[in-house]
Amino acid sequence: MKTLKVIKIGGNIINNEVDLLSFLKGFSNLIGPKILVHGGGKLASNLSNKMNIPVQLIDGRRVTNAETLDIITMVYAGKINKNIVAKLQSFGCNSVGFSGADGNTIIANKRPETPINYGFAGDIVKVNIDVLKILINNDITNIFSAISHDKKGQLLNTNADTVASELAIAFSNDYKVELYYCFEKKGVLKRMNDENSVIKKINNKKYIELKKSNIINEGMIPKLDNCFYALDHNVSKVCIGQPTMLFDHHSNFTTIQKL
Amino acid sequence: MKTLKVIKIGGNIINNEVDLLSFLKGFSNLIGPKILVHGGGKLASNLSNKMNIPVQLIDGRRVTNAETLDIITMVYAGKINKNIVAKLQSFGCNSVGFSGADGNTIIANKRPETPINYGFAGDIVKVNIDVLKILINNDITNIFSAISHDKKGQLLNTNADTVASELAIAFSNDYKVELYYCFEKKGVLKRMNDENSVIKKINNKKYIELKKSNIINEGMIPKLDNCFYALDHNVSKVCIGQPTMLFDHHSNFTTIQKL
Repeated sequence: MKTLKVIKIGGNIINNEVDLLSFLKGFSNLIGPKILVHGGGKLASNLSNKMNIPVQLIDGRRVTNAETLDIITMVYAGKINKNIVAKLQSFGCNSVGFSGADGNTIIANKRPETPINYGFAGDIVKVNIDVLKILINNDITNIFSAISHDKKGQLLNTNADTVASELAIAFSNDYKVELYYCFEKKGVLKRMNDENSVIKKINNKKYIELKKSNIINEGMIPKLDNCFYALDHNVSKVCIGQPTMLFDHHSNFTTIQKL
Repeated sequence: MKTLKVIKIGGNIINNEVDLLSFLKGFSNLIGPKILVHGGGKLASNLSNKMNIPVQLIDGRRVTNAETLDIITMVYAGKINKNIVAKLQSFGCNSVGFSGADGNTIIANKRPETPINYGFAGDIVKVNIDVLKILINNDITNIFSAISHDKKGQLLNTNADTVASELAIAFSNDYKVELYYCFEKKGVLKRMNDENSVIKKINNKKYIELKKSNIINEGMIPKLDNCFYALDHNVSKVCIGQPTMLFDHHSNFTTIQKL
């Protein structure tokens, strides 16, 4: 089975033009089929501020009213996505930018309004990779903005980590899929503020131990649950760390595998 | 040879949600391969105003500084494009939204800064429909926002009429291409303010006559030149009129053909 990489980048890279360009150069040189999933970083909040639209977060999650959905669609699927594609073209990586509406790829339900009304937030119900497969088979790289649709004409804001894991799972029938979560830290850390305390490998057994001994902090648990969910659905491995993990196998990062 | 329709819609449809939805429903029912090209209507200027970015036009053409380019990318390739795609999915028309950077489709040079500096405006130098053809061969409809790129990482604002005609020309090797320009009037009019004076057919000879007799006004000449340019490059016919021309062949509109 051929290997396919699904790589998710977050705000820390997107917010910095120099870092983003250097990442995209490295990304374009990665061998084999690959998909990039991106969120929007601070740019969406910046635009909301410029337009005097209040940014409302509940438990760190954005409340997406109609105006905020427009902003997210403009920033994620427009500005960020198209600039990434243009940069990749300059590096000779032929790419196409997608949202979940394109190719009917990510279908979601609007999240129920109780107990908390998050507005136009989507919970993924189906992933359909037919069009992505056609493109990949023709050596086209997909750049995915974390927006889904309900198949009834409504776009929905969707968590980028979840979009990445659901895409990774959907490709697992046809590929050996590796899922990479790039974030600001070097990996899952034993001691929260010690970048030299990266845990190199976490399997099911170790994960239970780490949770029992309170070594993994609260913020990491949903992230790691997401990783194990992907592993339980045939993704071959999940890596968490800085983007350098993709380009330099001597760099420190965390690999998450079932066994 | 199979027929392919390239359809350009302008601001008058995009600005009105009800008209747009009704157009998209009709569009999704059109039989055979088709490509939709859209501009941005008033939405880009509206967003500029909200953000206190001055809208600068010279001879009706937008001056695209870096901030305006961001706005255009957000509005055209983000908000408008993705909402059109989501609506089409709801009508069962599987579509993918593109800018000229996606699939390396529309390559342009930044317009020279003299005599007038239009900023990040692109003049098309090459159209590459390889990826579009792959999608069309798989029954996927392309929705095109009028943005190009320079293959060096820079997005560029490009005239939507020109994007439509260049795409139509590029497909003419493989298809019998019909190019439709939808705008607010019923067609090319004999008397400017008389909607019942639609000229049904214009060929080369008639065009020369109409220009000589000053029946065609100044604004229409670049539009018609663009049409004849397409016909000279193997597009089979060009139609100008309201969107109804696509759905009702009894409606009045102007057909432009070489002979």
